Amino acid sequence: MMRTSRLRIIPLGGLEQIGMNITAFEYEDSIIVVDCGLAFPEDDMLGIDLVIPDVTYLKDNIKKVKAFFITHGHEDHIGAIPYILRDINVPIYATRLTMGIIENKLSEHELMDSTRRKVVSFGQSINIGQFRIEFIKTNHSIVDAAALAIYSPAGIVVHTGDFKVDYTPVHGDAIDLQRFAEIGKKGVLALMCDSTNAEREGFTPSEKTVGRNLNDLFDEHDSTRIIIATFASNVDRVQQIIDTAYKFGRKVAIEGRSMVSIIETATELGCLTVPENTLIGIEELRNYPDEKTVIITTGSQGESMAALSRMASGSHKKIHIGPNDTVIFSSHPIPGNEKAVTNIINELLVMGADVIFQDVHVSGHACQEEIKLIYSLVKPKYSIPVHGEYKHLKAQAKLAQELGMPKENIFILRSGNVLEIDENSAEVTGQVHVGDIMVDGLGVGDVGNVVIRDRQRLSEDGIIIVTLSLDGSSTILLGGPEIVSRGFVYEKESDELMEEAKNVALEAIEDCLDRGIRDWNKIRNSIRDSLGGYVWKATKRRPMILPIITEVD
Amino acid sequence: MMRTSRLRIIPLGGLEQIGMNITAFEYEDSIIVVDCGLAFPEDDMLGIDLVIPDVTYLKDNIKKVKAFFITHGHEDHIGAIPYILRDINVPIYATRLTMGIIENKLSEHELMDSTRRKVVSFGQSINIGQFRIEFIKTNHSIVDAAALAIYSPAGIVVHTGDFKVDYTPVHGDAIDLQRFAEIGKKGVLALMCDSTNAEREGFTPSEKTVGRNLNDLFDEHDSTRIIIATFASNVDRVQQIIDTAYKFGRKVAIEGRSMVSIIETATELGCLTVPENTLIGIEELRNYPDEKTVIITTGSQGESMAALSRMASGSHKKIHIGPNDTVIFSSHPIPGNEKAVTNIINELLVMGADVIFQDVHVSGHACQEEIKLIYSLVKPKYSIPVHGEYKHLKAQAKLAQELGMPKENIFILRSGNVLEIDENSAEVTGQVHVGDIMVDGLGVGDVGNVVIRDRQRLSEDGIIIVTLSLDGSSTILLGGPEIVSRGFVYEKESDELMEEAKNVALEAIEDCLDRGIRDWNKIRNSIRDSLGGYVWKATKRRPMILPIITEVD
Repeated sequence: MMRTSRLRIIPLGGLEQIGMNITAFEYEDSIIVVDCGLAFPEDDMLGIDLVIPDVTYLKDNIKKVKAFFITHGHEDHIGAIPYILRDINVPIYATRLTMGIIENKLSEHELMDSTRRKVVSFGQSINIGQFRIEFIKTNHSIVDAAALAIYSPAGIVVHTGDFKVDYTPVHGDAIDLQRFAEIGKKGVLALMCDSTNAEREGFTPSEKTVGRNLNDLFDEHDSTRIIIATFASNVDRVQQIIDTAYKFGRKVAIEGRSMVSIIETATELGCLTVPENTLIGIEELRNYPDEKTVIITTGSQGESMAALSRMASGSHKKIHIGPNDTVIFSSHPIPGNEKAVTNIINELLVMGADVIFQDVHVSGHACQEEIKLIYSLVKPKYSIPVHGEYKHLKAQAKLAQELGMPKENIFILRSGNVLEIDENSAEVTGQVHVGDIMVDGLGVGDVGNVVIRDRQRLSEDGIIIVTLSLDGSSTILLGGPEIVSRGFVYEKESDELMEEAKNVALEAIEDCLDRGIRDWNKIRNSIRDSLGGYVWKATKRRPMILPIITEVD
Repeated sequence: MMRTSRLRIIPLGGLEQIGMNITAFEYEDSIIVVDCGLAFPEDDMLGIDLVIPDVTYLKDNIKKVKAFFITHGHEDHIGAIPYILRDINVPIYATRLTMGIIENKLSEHELMDSTRRKVVSFGQSINIGQFRIEFIKTNHSIVDAAALAIYSPAGIVVHTGDFKVDYTPVHGDAIDLQRFAEIGKKGVLALMCDSTNAEREGFTPSEKTVGRNLNDLFDEHDSTRIIIATFASNVDRVQQIIDTAYKFGRKVAIEGRSMVSIIETATELGCLTVPENTLIGIEELRNYPDEKTVIITTGSQGESMAALSRMASGSHKKIHIGPNDTVIFSSHPIPGNEKAVTNIINELLVMGADVIFQDVHVSGHACQEEIKLIYSLVKPKYSIPVHGEYKHLKAQAKLAQELGMPKENIFILRSGNVLEIDENSAEVTGQVHVGDIMVDGLGVGDVGNVVIRDRQRLSEDGIIIVTLSLDGSSTILLGGPEIVSRGFVYEKESDELMEEAKNVALEAIEDCLDRGIRDWNKIRNSIRDSLGGYVWKATKRRPMILPIITEVD
């Protein structure tokens, strides 16, 4: 019997627990890539705007790479496309709204012309290289989310994408559970299932339940303006807010760049239906009484530059918060944003607004009962929990075991792990290079760990700069030392300290020159050591000390 | 009828929403101060160790200030004592363990000899100036917490401190509800009640419930080492862990400086009882099988320097985590620490440990039913919600209204507000100076907003330093410009950028010299403008640009 090759599954999403979704599926001469997400910087990545995956592996195997298949339009699944595409220019396959959002990005980066794009319908399959990829309808906190069935000669892998089971979705159909079952019947090699809510018992409620709560809130707060913050990409949520506003005879204004952009795209694509004469511009708000208006805004995560944050701090130019406002957070803080959100809630309350931040949101991810349902429909031989922190992946692994899957058939992969898999066996056989590439302004990858460490040091205790001028032969001190600090201490309160610091530096320099030391590195080190020691003793701080020598002829 | 003076109540706890507890009570020639807490720095206070209140008001009225009365030994109630006492050296009154913890601080700061201290028993009253202060037993997440009844000629104020109602406390008595009722019967002018959990329905469970859960967990995890992270100051929690360990025949090692220190103090004062032959040193752990040991450690909030964090990152010298460890978080993340805690949980799971972080903690603060109970016992005329963010104070205000208190009798005070109050009326009549004083290393107040802004700027995009040497008359460029950057971009990748930056700076300098500009400020500004423009265009970043001119003769 001729043994077929094994399928190789390789998560490429940067270092651990960062959250960029990008996975390579490789079979002989073919590689397809599922998703291409970015991550937002960790707290210690100072000054970094975003983080993208290092796809050296794809570059090294560029001839094999056939296409990207994108499950849905969230940043952690599409955000790196404009960066990665510069090196890996292969076609992109995605559903309607997903592609609409991707195209907005491509336009911004002036990559529309150079990018091959194909909009796929649910149920449609794409044959490419050794693979066939089928898009399956799911539900999620964004419209047009898809699961993928990836058919390879080694077997079928079902990748759920991010999903929940919503029997009564706001827009379009419920998740295509029958198709999951059908594919399950054929025999599935591996299931890669969303783990985000694997620690939570029960079932995630339908998006429609939010509509009912909105209705109650509009009823209760019928004499104030209503401001609702939510995720721009949650088109169904926006739809429900607009529908409720319309029902209560309120006009709707949209605030925040990303909110405006996605609403436009979703409307064009028919994913959002806005009743006539409902939307108004921000500047038209003044033409209507407060109780006849609703503002839908970005900033539900407490993002410091978003519209809601500016309203809360009183720095928004057009919207001023007061006792006649009800502010509704139709969102839940993403881990790490809790404090920022709370700060905004407090600011809004201080301004006199009523603030509602509970029970106006449901998750877009499957809880335990939904995960078990998918396992029971798909009945995979192997399980590869995806999407979540390590603790979430572990929680799904535990669920899979409870459902009877042998422990050795469950693989929690780390970034760069190469899982080789077929009907007979599955094992991690290697590791490819992965990493985080930091994007700062226009720079992609030009800020690395050294720069970040410097920024951390600078942010802690500031910098002391010592400048001096030496003659060409480095034997005579012609100017300086001058001492300048930034981020260290108040200059005025520390005149004495800086005066003494200058003496310490001068002594160190003179000592070097007396001893005939002409190596600038040694002179710099001597200044750094003496001054560092003095400053630590005097202040218990460790500013960066930077001696700069200028040669004067 | 001679009208008595009104009582003045002035919260002095720094700027809003920071959390330092310190309140002045003033009647004619007498001021007493309740609590003297610090705050931990906000995220944007880069490099700051802690924040203390600006007590200018107390300094300006130093002759009136009679004493500090401390409700309990948590940092947000006692942490500023060593700093404030340098200027306001008045006696401190506190209960046994509270004073023990204060004395540890005073020793560290070498202030024991110069500080007058008086340990107070529950039920005891102190007459001082125009006031009498009675200490009333409460329950909280630290032993010996007290409420205060503050008797003044204008009426009685009851200040709950931080409290919960625990009918079955681990150590000592339950909260003295009878005394609250008795004072309530006398007629209470105002209640200042803990708001922390005012948004939560129901009753906070007894600390004893944690003991039962610990018992179950020890039973279940009888074949691994157990590591438990909790708050050092939660002596009752530590007592229950030690008791459970003893019951299951395990030895207990203590890790973390603050944990060791508080356990020593609590044991000396009789607040903690450790069975003989139970405590062992960390280095003795190796003499016992894993399943016969427990480690109690600091770091339950994900603090980066704490023992648990070092264990999780594999950098702890003596404790190495592996699959034979069960790590229990007997704590709940304080808002803002959620992500740090989650990161540690993930690290521990990756190392193979079992991690338990649910249902092994109860709050130390009263929920809604307990708050209502206190109101119903005390029956105050006025309510002044204390301790919590603005949203918590609002939540208590709402509860007070539900209990029938008129809205105009409820005062949510901001820092520095002067509330004048007596049986006839209550109103905010003024505002005293308050503020945050940042402590960085040995420096108290020498780091201000300018320094913090510089640190933020440095942390975002780093710094570019331009040095040059001019002759005495500032007409000839004798040396430089040299360009050095830190925290900006990789030096090696940006040679071209830095070379071009040098040219831009040189042009700006030469242009100034050509035009006969000799004012160094103007030359510096010209360099800053030209270079800043160039760098923004090339990188979309705004590093700090610092030109330094050295005079050479």
